[in-house]
Amino acid sequence: MNVESFFSKSTKEALQNDPPGEWMPALPDECIRLSSGYPAPHLMPDKEIKAAVARLLEEEKDQPLHYLGSPKMEKLKEQILDRLSIRGMNVSTDELLITAGACQAIDLIARVLIDDETLVVIEAPTYMEALEIFKNYTNHFISIPVDEYGLQTDLLEEVLVERKEKGLSLPRFLYTIPTFQNPTGTTMTEERRKHVLELSAKYNFLILEDDAYGELHFDKHSTPLKAMDTDGRVLHVGSLSKVVAPGMRIGWIAATSEFITALAWFKKDLDHPFAQATMAVYLESIDMQERVETLRATYQANCSVLLSALEQYLPKSASWYVPNGGYFVWVKVTGDTSELLAPALEEGVSFVPGKYFFLDQQDGTKYLRLSFSYADEKRIVEGVKRLGSVLK
Amino acid sequence: MNVESFFSKSTKEALQNDPPGEWMPALPDECIRLSSGYPAPHLMPDKEIKAAVARLLEEEKDQPLHYLGSPKMEKLKEQILDRLSIRGMNVSTDELLITAGACQAIDLIARVLIDDETLVVIEAPTYMEALEIFKNYTNHFISIPVDEYGLQTDLLEEVLVERKEKGLSLPRFLYTIPTFQNPTGTTMTEERRKHVLELSAKYNFLILEDDAYGELHFDKHSTPLKAMDTDGRVLHVGSLSKVVAPGMRIGWIAATSEFITALAWFKKDLDHPFAQATMAVYLESIDMQERVETLRATYQANCSVLLSALEQYLPKSASWYVPNGGYFVWVKVTGDTSELLAPALEEGVSFVPGKYFFLDQQDGTKYLRLSFSYADEKRIVEGVKRLGSVLK
Repeated sequence: MNVESFFSKSTKEALQNDPPGEWMPALPDECIRLSSGYPAPHLMPDKEIKAAVARLLEEEKDQPLHYLGSPKMEKLKEQILDRLSIRGMNVSTDELLITAGACQAIDLIARVLIDDETLVVIEAPTYMEALEIFKNYTNHFISIPVDEYGLQTDLLEEVLVERKEKGLSLPRFLYTIPTFQNPTGTTMTEERRKHVLELSAKYNFLILEDDAYGELHFDKHSTPLKAMDTDGRVLHVGSLSKVVAPGMRIGWIAATSEFITALAWFKKDLDHPFAQATMAVYLESIDMQERVETLRATYQANCSVLLSALEQYLPKSASWYVPNGGYFVWVKVTGDTSELLAPALEEGVSFVPGKYFFLDQQDGTKYLRLSFSYADEKRIVEGVKRLGSVLK
Repeated sequence: MNVESFFSKSTKEALQNDPPGEWMPALPDECIRLSSGYPAPHLMPDKEIKAAVARLLEEEKDQPLHYLGSPKMEKLKEQILDRLSIRGMNVSTDELLITAGACQAIDLIARVLIDDETLVVIEAPTYMEALEIFKNYTNHFISIPVDEYGLQTDLLEEVLVERKEKGLSLPRFLYTIPTFQNPTGTTMTEERRKHVLELSAKYNFLILEDDAYGELHFDKHSTPLKAMDTDGRVLHVGSLSKVVAPGMRIGWIAATSEFITALAWFKKDLDHPFAQATMAVYLESIDMQERVETLRATYQANCSVLLSALEQYLPKSASWYVPNGGYFVWVKVTGDTSELLAPALEEGVSFVPGKYFFLDQQDGTKYLRLSFSYADEKRIVEGVKRLGSVLK
């Protein structure tokens, strides 16, 4: 029996264009994980989640274990809407869809918007998982570089002008991580934010704003595109993975209700009553603002330690952007970072080779992504020291 | 801005062919829910889940709250494989994919197998949620009636013979719930099971076996199609929703590793470490065989009470199949059950009108589905009494 013969056309195309590939090798146990975009272990709220589950199940008994479950699920929506409003996003209940993390949100949006002929604009570099998701639906991309001020909107405009002149198709949406971008750590300036919104109106495309790191600023914060959008063009994707716990799988899409109705219709894993209600009770039990302040302070300290270590241990030829928040530092070196990974792992430190973040993997050869979120200060220094010895 | 203009072709088609529609009205609080396919509230393991979370987080701290999470997630796979093997399904780890319940499993299979031109065989009647999922991908169905011995495989064969003779396209897969079918409660005989497997080999189609109720037999149990499959044609979908708790969202697909690899690739909500690890610890803490025996005894008693009440309170013209397990009884009456719902709700009892379970809703006018899983014996009797008064 030929299994592949049963696959749909789009499945066959997706698997052919982008076969499930090798990803990072398994990391040795003792390895210092500068590759992992995970929250700091000591900031994970395991005690509080334990207490939240106890309270939830004592109060509501079987309710959160059923399909339709707990009244706390509506509470979670309110809590998320409150967090959004603090950052200038005024969203109503029917404009919010809870998802199993940001990845499901991105996949759902792709499912609803992308044909095999749809043109999508992505940043170069961009979040590799999102790129993999889009490649499951289309093979048509425009890749626009990111610099220290975020997406280079002038270059995007040039491409749009040229395509329009030539009568070529225009993109259906832009996928961007404007704030503390993954992997560069850089943030789109306000000027560029305005510019990209103007372009979206002029060339009639949507913006998928991935804002997973938006709350984790060190000092000045940026206004989300969603808060500047007067036109309903921004589909805002957020997540509690970076500020609470990824294992709970709580993310969302905020968009106009017409989008949310369609997205909800194609979301067929149903609600996740136990996880959603637990999260709501957890959020009730803590001061989220205080928690976010703690995260910011910790990650800012970690980042500062990482940057000093880079200065001290990396070859003079290496360079990087200085982030103002988020989880990552993007480093440019002289060698091929894919080839440097094995020796680095042998030294006991991991990073993500730049190639994974680009549509054309060749563009990423000289880059690597370091995370300052997961390892503690001491291990960050030791990790960079080991990385330095590999690079030299 | 015209939101719909941004939708993909397949999204537009799906929304046009089958717009997000009205479903059951909200049920009054005091209503006796003979509509709900939920487990019995008093059998929900809220205390045990609370204890499982406490144990998990005390032992593993932050681990289950991370992306890659807990070693218990592998444990859960082993536990599910053990349950499958008891029922004659010998499946290895790389042939199993954990999903967020059976609905996500069915949606994933649809995502990977169905084009807009794909022909799918469904049972008439069938599980309405699965039908909604398939309609999101195709508009081409063959609907084959179910009787008290399950799917009428002779009728399926007739259709296949005719289509082959005429040079028409053959189906890519059959969606069936062979054991304690939703909604009819009937079970496919062993003879028909053999027949349908022969047909699948002869006409080269796959079988999506939805086995959500398979463990809940009253006396004799049936061999799953997956256990009889020598050809790798059966994709077996299971779930802990009916035997543990739907709110945990734990389901799976068991199929040959080539299918699992592709399905896993398109499953973009990632793993659900907290829910999966909690379930594993819960399953470790109980005797699942004993639990299943308790469920069987309870549901058998409920079913027997329901059947007696039907005899006593329903008009003589009403008829039904006697189930040997599962959650449901399928009742045929003389009126239009859609029109009977509002008066029934006013009397304080709910059921699901038959129309929802058919591709052509007209075929379901005279049927209704009753559930004996959720209400207790006393309320079942009272519910049927109220239903009887509406029907008379």
